[in-house]
Amino acid sequence: MGLIVQKYGGSSVADAEGLKRVASRIVATKKAGHQVAVVVSAMGDTTDGLIELAEQVSPMPNGRELDMLLTAGERISMALLAMAIGNLGHEARSFTGSQAGVLTTSAHGKARIIDVKPGRIVEALNDGAIAIVAGFQGVNQDTNDVTTLGRGGSDTTAVALAAALEADVCEIYTDVDGVYTADPRIVPTARKLNSVTYEEMLELAASGAKVLHLRCVEYARRYDLPIHVRSSFSNLEGTWVVKDHPEGANMEQAIISGVAHDKSEAKITIVGVPDRTGVAARIFQTIADTDINIDMIVQNVSAASTGLTDISFTLPKSDGLEATTILKAIQGEIGFHSLQYDDQIGKLSLVGAGMRSHPGVTATFFACLAEAGLNIEMISTSEIRISVIVREIDLEKGVKAAHTAFNLDGEDEAIVYSGTGR
Amino acid sequence: MGLIVQKYGGSSVADAEGLKRVASRIVATKKAGHQVAVVVSAMGDTTDGLIELAEQVSPMPNGRELDMLLTAGERISMALLAMAIGNLGHEARSFTGSQAGVLTTSAHGKARIIDVKPGRIVEALNDGAIAIVAGFQGVNQDTNDVTTLGRGGSDTTAVALAAALEADVCEIYTDVDGVYTADPRIVPTARKLNSVTYEEMLELAASGAKVLHLRCVEYARRYDLPIHVRSSFSNLEGTWVVKDHPEGANMEQAIISGVAHDKSEAKITIVGVPDRTGVAARIFQTIADTDINIDMIVQNVSAASTGLTDISFTLPKSDGLEATTILKAIQGEIGFHSLQYDDQIGKLSLVGAGMRSHPGVTATFFACLAEAGLNIEMISTSEIRISVIVREIDLEKGVKAAHTAFNLDGEDEAIVYSGTGR
Repeated sequence: MGLIVQKYGGSSVADAEGLKRVASRIVATKKAGHQVAVVVSAMGDTTDGLIELAEQVSPMPNGRELDMLLTAGERISMALLAMAIGNLGHEARSFTGSQAGVLTTSAHGKARIIDVKPGRIVEALNDGAIAIVAGFQGVNQDTNDVTTLGRGGSDTTAVALAAALEADVCEIYTDVDGVYTADPRIVPTARKLNSVTYEEMLELAASGAKVLHLRCVEYARRYDLPIHVRSSFSNLEGTWVVKDHPEGANMEQAIISGVAHDKSEAKITIVGVPDRTGVAARIFQTIADTDINIDMIVQNVSAASTGLTDISFTLPKSDGLEATTILKAIQGEIGFHSLQYDDQIGKLSLVGAGMRSHPGVTATFFACLAEAGLNIEMISTSEIRISVIVREIDLEKGVKAAHTAFNLDGEDEAIVYSGTGR
Repeated sequence: MGLIVQKYGGSSVADAEGLKRVASRIVATKKAGHQVAVVVSAMGDTTDGLIELAEQVSPMPNGRELDMLLTAGERISMALLAMAIGNLGHEARSFTGSQAGVLTTSAHGKARIIDVKPGRIVEALNDGAIAIVAGFQGVNQDTNDVTTLGRGGSDTTAVALAAALEADVCEIYTDVDGVYTADPRIVPTARKLNSVTYEEMLELAASGAKVLHLRCVEYARRYDLPIHVRSSFSNLEGTWVVKDHPEGANMEQAIISGVAHDKSEAKITIVGVPDRTGVAARIFQTIADTDINIDMIVQNVSAASTGLTDISFTLPKSDGLEATTILKAIQGEIGFHSLQYDDQIGKLSLVGAGMRSHPGVTATFFACLAEAGLNIEMISTSEIRISVIVREIDLEKGVKAAHTAFNLDGEDEAIVYSGTGR
């Protein structure tokens, strides 16, 4: 008998059938003798529908009100899920983020969890009930205003709640069987990983693997909470995200855990930047001040004859317009020639704790990409990751080539239950 | 400068256009120098959609969870309304029933307001903001669980909030211009009333006039709070619901304020009931125990030869199945012959404080109905109301005949903005 926190995403509860299927799974876990707390997202595309309505009444909706609006989504799914469980003869009680004690910062739309005080959840569990908690939302502890956590928020709610409840495991249900060596839609022979470390999962998430969000993995690592990523459509074991690979698994652990790719970034090149101390700092400080996250940076060697250099960096496509606007505003002050914006790039990353002790990884990686005819435009590395920027059109070819070069191909085709790849 | 509470129903905020139109009205009131608190219902048919979803996952949804679900409806409309106001350059803050301090009993789905502690609303108003409050919902003061108030709940929220804030007036916006002498869809020459007393409005509401709910009028009478019923589609003065008709109006006040009709009731006749002391009491106690509201009762004179009598009563059609089931269960104990269920009846009511001092009203009423060929099946009266049960198919004919007989016809056709008659 243990305490299990389960999280179900929007695609798992998209309609009445999905809600009933999820209710059955929850009841099965309860019947197996566990205490169960469940975190649920809004149904299907509810959130998108609400955002559309907001845009219709106001082009720049107030953050507090937008959060009030969006939190209606999980309110609907959690109440329906509790009813569906009730219909199976088990007691379930639903709780908003506020009722579940999810205390956050005041940043509407991207609040961070400060603390979780799950008194009412503990009470429900002790009463023998199943607790259903709204994902993605919390309450500003100073103003009592409702907040949302931003992208990946429901995963983070689940992990934070599990940590606060000292749960044995946090199960994240999705529509694939776990974490794969590559996106199965691109590499049909991708293998499901039985385990990945927090470290590897962080690099995979940061490299574009969408199965778990960065913040949720960071939270789990901090509290050393095991995450089990698995499918809500099957009963197969999924992927365990843990501190260390389990004994035995270590022996056969590959050098590389997976190949990740990301098409969400764009590249900005600032042409003809005066090569003086402080200029680059001034540029990146200006961008940082607007909360835009820069990923990779390359500064070309200055041409001695001109004293000018080019600086390129990558950033989310969604921030492209804002960043170019800001840079144009300081063009006179900095004195650069021009800006180039390129949103046809793709990022290809190789992640694996094994590469620490295998110096040949980089060489093999670059060789296989060259053989596939790919041109590498930018490179960045960490101790357990190598990322390169290539043309977006070449990205899938590169994923396949790297997957094969590092012997990651499995024997069977991967199982994907829906087209979303989540 | 005053404090005005406005209430907008679901049809006024059915879509983005409606929300923007309502936002403009609210801002206009604010600009006129008033403090404004607004109570809003769920958009259009949101609530029906949520109930349908609930039925899909559970035939008997848990009351607490159903309330959690349904309160998502006003959460959406109130946040969107606040955004729409923000877009017009005015600050608006939305509040759930719980945040607005609407404390209720624990009866999920039909909770009653115990108290309103509008601390956060007062604070918002003092800050110069417009407060938007979710109608129809509150919080159980013992358990902190979310509750809903049942039918007419948003009107009641508005009046209760207005009373707690000691507002100057509670404006109920609807899609007709006010309270009419009869339903304008049936009697096109029906006149808008400039004023009705609480007493008259209570009788009209109880007699099927749908413009205001009984509970809301009861609340207003208790606190002597003026209600102004008016259209959200025009700027015309509507109908004032007040303690006494204003000076001057008294002079010209008609004997009859209006003719109301109601097709929502059914009639049950219990045939062959032993005419013994306590039998009728036993029957009606059994029904009362299930919270079914009985309206009119007729007991036939007992036939001396048999010692048996018939008892007929009316009740909401929606309670018909439950009532017949209960009565059949006690048939053996009571010893009656049979049950007749008739849902083809209609109730026609004449309401007016003036009839107190005009004994000829009943005679005129019955004469006009007889002339129109209507058969009267049951009668009930109060000091300011006469109601009769007729065939449902004859109901509209009766409404027209009574309206004319009491000289209520106006010169112009009434304005109805939508087909709902609310």
